[in-house]
Amino acid sequence: MKATTYPPSMRQLVNELSKLPSIGEKSAVRLAYHLLTRDVPLGARLSEAITAAQERTHLCKICYALTEGELCAICSDSSRNRTSICVVEKPADVIAIERSGGYSGLYHVLHGLWSPVRGVTPEQTKLGALLERLHQSLSSLDTLFPKVTELILGTSTTVEGDATALYIANSVSELELRITRIAQGLPKGGELEYADEVTLSHAFEGRRSLA
Amino acid sequence: MKATTYPPSMRQLVNELSKLPSIGEKSAVRLAYHLLTRDVPLGARLSEAITAAQERTHLCKICYALTEGELCAICSDSSRNRTSICVVEKPADVIAIERSGGYSGLYHVLHGLWSPVRGVTPEQTKLGALLERLHQSLSSLDTLFPKVTELILGTSTTVEGDATALYIANSVSELELRITRIAQGLPKGGELEYADEVTLSHAFEGRRSLA
Repeated sequence: MKATTYPPSMRQLVNELSKLPSIGEKSAVRLAYHLLTRDVPLGARLSEAITAAQERTHLCKICYALTEGELCAICSDSSRNRTSICVVEKPADVIAIERSGGYSGLYHVLHGLWSPVRGVTPEQTKLGALLERLHQSLSSLDTLFPKVTELILGTSTTVEGDATALYIANSVSELELRITRIAQGLPKGGELEYADEVTLSHAFEGRRSLA
Repeated sequence: MKATTYPPSMRQLVNELSKLPSIGEKSAVRLAYHLLTRDVPLGARLSEAITAAQERTHLCKICYALTEGELCAICSDSSRNRTSICVVEKPADVIAIERSGGYSGLYHVLHGLWSPVRGVTPEQTKLGALLERLHQSLSSLDTLFPKVTELILGTSTTVEGDATALYIANSVSELELRITRIAQGLPKGGELEYADEVTLSHAFEGRRSLA
């Protein structure tokens, strides 16, 4: 008998670990050995941290970002500009935009992009909730509560991100809203010589006067 | 207030995940989001699998490989050649050698290599247990139980692996044992043109006659 296999419970752990994004079989084996022989306390802490985070966090009722409270820190912050909603794909995008410091409005997290290739329809994202949120805001008779005036389509500039942005733009075209798309162009520090044609053409299309 | 941070319990999860080998902060954030928003059931299964594997697996009493029984599958296999012990660094090495099918003896897992740089002394590995195991085997009066006759130093051919092999060879030099080191040379499919000098020099030193 050759012992070319791992103990059953380790095999199970490897199976689960390898279902994580960008963790292959080999990495999963290395991680499992680490948890079983190198750093056993880490395993217990990790397992607790997963349970605790899953129990405590949920999606914000308004924008669907990840939060521990009923509303997320942004939706419950009265100093934010409530006339603007930026639509993004995932909670990590909110953190990225917040880090940039260039935006002070609200968000709406789609939790997915329209992707025919991966079989994801716009209806499987939080687009329905966005439309409802916009309708509610625009039809509100409460004059004290500011209405949404701008919808910024902040999905990635990938095929799926662009398609989703276009789909949303069409879905809300009847509403009284300014609909904008985040700018495309050369990234900071980008060398013109090495930029691809699409980026360059966007950079020219979107050029702005300096004076 | 800018929400540039994650909810506290997610932050904790990211902290623990980033302590895993080869998982950086960015990967940890991606994994955490995956567990909290994309695949929540995986989180529960993972957390259970870690606990189960940590509870059920332990080190084999004889060779220190990972096992769920009292002895590992190899130590308890009466068909294995009990006169030979191959010393390796970690349990994964046992699996790798078993897969090669080129060895039918027993193992001894050190769980570490001598590394002055990382502050690991030979005493912090399972070397003491190996010496005890060898002494017991060689001094045994039980003629039915075969004595160990060969100790194969199967640590990696890195600086630390070589140093550990040499250290062990010195530690057991008084014993009546054949002490061998796994061969160094060109790997299968290795192109001579691109081999480094040390590998080439080992390949020539270790050359064997074909007829």
